[in-house]
Amino acid sequence: MTRDARWQTALTSIAPNKILVRGYPLDEMMGRLTFGEAAYLLLMGELPSPALGKMFDAILVSSLDHGVTPPSTLAARNVATTGAPLKDSVAAGVLAFGPHHGGDIESCMRYLDSGLGLMRSGQSLQQAAETLVDGSIRANEVPPGFGHRIHSRDPRAARLFQMALELELEGEHVRLLRAIEQAVGSKSAIFGRPLPVNVDGAIAAVTADLGFAYELGNAVFLISRLPGLIAHAHEERMRQPAMRQIDPKDHDYDGARERRLPERRK
Amino acid sequence: MTRDARWQTALTSIAPNKILVRGYPLDEMMGRLTFGEAAYLLLMGELPSPALGKMFDAILVSSLDHGVTPPSTLAARNVATTGAPLKDSVAAGVLAFGPHHGGDIESCMRYLDSGLGLMRSGQSLQQAAETLVDGSIRANEVPPGFGHRIHSRDPRAARLFQMALELELEGEHVRLLRAIEQAVGSKSAIFGRPLPVNVDGAIAAVTADLGFAYELGNAVFLISRLPGLIAHAHEERMRQPAMRQIDPKDHDYDGARERRLPERRK
Amino acid sequence: MTRDARWQTALTSIAPNKILVRGYPLDEMMGRLTFGEAAYLLLMGELPSPALGKMFDAILVSSLDHGVTPPSTLAARNVATTGAPLKDSVAAGVLAFGPHHGGDIESCMRYLDSGLGLMRSGQSLQQAAETLVDGSIRANEVPPGFGHRIHSRDPRAARLFQMALELELEGEHVRLLRAIEQAVGSKSAIFGRPLPVNVDGAIAAVTADLGFAYELGNAVFLISRLPGLIAHAHEERMRQPAMRQIDPKDHDYDGARERRLPERRK
Amino acid sequence: MTRDARWQTALTSIAPNKILVRGYPLDEMMGRLTFGEAAYLLLMGELPSPALGKMFDAILVSSLDHGVTPPSTLAARNVATTGAPLKDSVAAGVLAFGPHHGGDIESCMRYLDSGLGLMRSGQSLQQAAETLVDGSIRANEVPPGFGHRIHSRDPRAARLFQMALELELEGEHVRLLRAIEQAVGSKSAIFGRPLPVNVDGAIAAVTADLGFAYELGNAVFLISRLPGLIAHAHEERMRQPAMRQIDPKDHDYDGARERRLPERRK
Repeated sequence: MTRDARWQTALTSIAPNKILVRGYPLDEMMGRLTFGEAAYLLLMGELPSPALGKMFDAILVSSLDHGVTPPSTLAARNVATTGAPLKDSVAAGVLAFGPHHGGDIESCMRYLDSGLGLMRSGQSLQQAAETLVDGSIRANEVPPGFGHRIHSRDPRAARLFQMALELELEGEHVRLLRAIEQAVGSKSAIFGRPLPVNVDGAIAAVTADLGFAYELGNAVFLISRLPGLIAHAHEERMRQPAMRQIDPKDHDYDGARERRLPERRK
Repeated sequence: MTRDARWQTALTSIAPNKILVRGYPLDEMMGRLTFGEAAYLLLMGELPSPALGKMFDAILVSSLDHGVTPPSTLAARNVATTGAPLKDSVAAGVLAFGPHHGGDIESCMRYLDSGLGLMRSGQSLQQAAETLVDGSIRANEVPPGFGHRIHSRDPRAARLFQMALELELEGEHVRLLRAIEQAVGSKSAIFGRPLPVNVDGAIAAVTADLGFAYELGNAVFLISRLPGLIAHAHEERMRQPAMRQIDPKDHDYDGARERRLPERRK
Repeated sequence: MTRDARWQTALTSIAPNKILVRGYPLDEMMGRLTFGEAAYLLLMGELPSPALGKMFDAILVSSLDHGVTPPSTLAARNVATTGAPLKDSVAAGVLAFGPHHGGDIESCMRYLDSGLGLMRSGQSLQQAAETLVDGSIRANEVPPGFGHRIHSRDPRAARLFQMALELELEGEHVRLLRAIEQAVGSKSAIFGRPLPVNVDGAIAAVTADLGFAYELGNAVFLISRLPGLIAHAHEERMRQPAMRQIDPKDHDYDGARERRLPERRK
Repeated sequence: MTRDARWQTALTSIAPNKILVRGYPLDEMMGRLTFGEAAYLLLMGELPSPALGKMFDAILVSSLDHGVTPPSTLAARNVATTGAPLKDSVAAGVLAFGPHHGGDIESCMRYLDSGLGLMRSGQSLQQAAETLVDGSIRANEVPPGFGHRIHSRDPRAARLFQMALELELEGEHVRLLRAIEQAVGSKSAIFGRPLPVNVDGAIAAVTADLGFAYELGNAVFLISRLPGLIAHAHEERMRQPAMRQIDPKDHDYDGARERRLPERRK
């Protein structure tokens, strides 16, 4: 077994009393960059423009929490009920972001890129969208990034598209996803149920337009979901008896009533 | 085995096409709250003031990454080198935030609260600080939140204290920690080495002043560290051969050179 | 940061074409030691006697599976339903062995050792048992290793005690646990419900008699439960639709009917 | 969201004071089945024959531990050094069994099954083996189940083949793997280095002959490796300072010297 040569990292350099993240002093970043902007810098290597930073913060907010029924939340709560440390609940919740739960982001990014390949080969936006959807129909699959158990119109996807437009960040992946949305809608009889673009699809298209690698598209979702996993694990420990059997259906919401953000926030 | 009664959650309510986090529509939060502000809302139940939101974003930025040598980074990279999904690297990294690595935040919060108890019983700030430090010396322990392998002055702690002061968020926990810092400094001969306040101590004092539960103090650290775990796992997969033996010492930094934030960011 | 000195391991030595576990050639162990005996060797450093090996295999069998309702099984199934790799289900299940679920073994080992301390100080077996139980009553706690949600007499505990007796491996920890059982039984009016010795208590007493470290007592439980976590994760993927909401109560057993081991196995 | 219908499990039935695993009383299994036999029953649904049980125990012993350098061991030790609970080290180690580390078992099972498909279509054993190896060469890949960083002849693989022969359990997967071994050997000039059958390949062939599902082939490896992960995490905590930087290369073995099993074990 020979000794490996030295290896390299380009993320963070550490010296006594000095921490540089992608070259920027970490303490200087604090208070001047939002966490979303700082995370973008670390993952992508360069500071985001103000519009990009705002978009990335919005993506992180979009999947903050989705209630008690997702498998990730249930995995986190089942670990919490055993008295394990909170970080163990978080790790179990992260493990539950499998291909069917969050992993759709990567699948949708690849799906969109295959459509862009069709366009490079001469198909129009609409043709590429229809080719993709016809392929999904032939494979008897729902296109990645479409459909939701509960929502017929996913409010998070709509808001991401609106922001991409307003911030002038809409790119070819978002435009193709919107075209696929049209094509899916025109064939809803074949799918047998409405298939709205979901938040995974919208995150996929926007992060692809921002140039994220496939696996980083999923990673963004992990960051976004962490506060939710933490909040559920903490609530489980604070409000419920230990070692209970957690039924995902027999619960009620007893939190704050619907309210609006104050004007200064808008 | 009897059927449990219904159970309650106060975090998020889900209805068709409507997601309310602590009562606020999630899509309305997107683009109007930073991720830090949204995470604060979810964890604490109410919107932060602008100053609080800025402080919380800075806390999240403070522990974004600390290079390749922490055990959490090494756990994540060792999983990444086996070709496992990125989320598995993240989960393994989260598991490495044990009592000696991040867990110091909770210990320091408890330490400070025991000092505040002394003050409620009549001791002055300085007396309480000295009582705590004398207790640590008798127990032959470093006070939680003090000391660093590399830094003699932790730039992240200094920045958090400065921001707390400027944003008028400095409370009794921060003041007590500063007094303990003085007491530790005056006894550095006993400890045998300089023991600066570290970033864990500063996060502990600030989040305690903000009213966070002990285990949420640690949880904040988990959120903060996630982009770093992701970036290292991703870099491992992109730049290194699979199944290598990862030596934490034989590495070099080959990233961006030291640079300053642009003026508009300040 | 100075380079650490070389470090040592006493478990396994690897050389080309030769693997020695605690000094024994691994290939020579195959077919000659059961997995239980081999695991005992690795954990404890020496080969078990035939009686010890049989006892250890029985301990491993005792917690093989406990159906679909334990939080560890539910954590594993919730990860499985997302399409994640099987190992991710296993990891999540392992994380659910918190202080209230498996961790009782370590608590019971410590409880028994504190009782043995009383005996060293002059108390009789019965006196030590009663002192321990009175302490639990004063602390308003169930003694660790006692009580079960479903069983009023845990058949696994009974079998472990019987085997310890027959194999002449019953030691002071088992004897003390039996005395505590008597003391608890005589005070069942105070506890308000029957509190049988459970399998965790029996494993604790037997492994303590065998000389296991506290944390290895819990570790034995992890090995024992692994096939169950695997079997449930695999069944979830084979028999259930993806992304279902797993209700721990609404299930039926449709497997093999009750049957007996063939005579040659007895 | 409609309520799901009731769901089924065929593994274990639980009733007060009665636990049936695949129909057999768990307490009756204790002391009468080895852990390997009991695990086989749970995973496969029926009791193994004595020969099968012995083979399965040997498979479990084969991967008990492989020293400090595998990524799984390093992930477990890096979590242990932070003071996290032992189960967290185990979970992190399990997560490191990615496609390049243990996952080779599943790849090799699929590889062998594609070869058996060729034989069903008329190719001889030797032809099928050569077709497979030629395919690997064209894809510029090492055949799954072949090659080892350290061993030029993997003693565990040799022992598994010998036992399969002696116990009359050698089936078509093992025979095909041996034929592939010949084909690989005859083309070692093309591969540029010796590529012995490794323990993953041998486990793959034997478990495939026993009828295991692909993902259960990997799962067997998880069970086998658990005592090793536990032993390393425990040793790390007992013998090393907390928060050390773990270098996989700078270690020495200071355990028992080479020794032989006593005669009665043979």
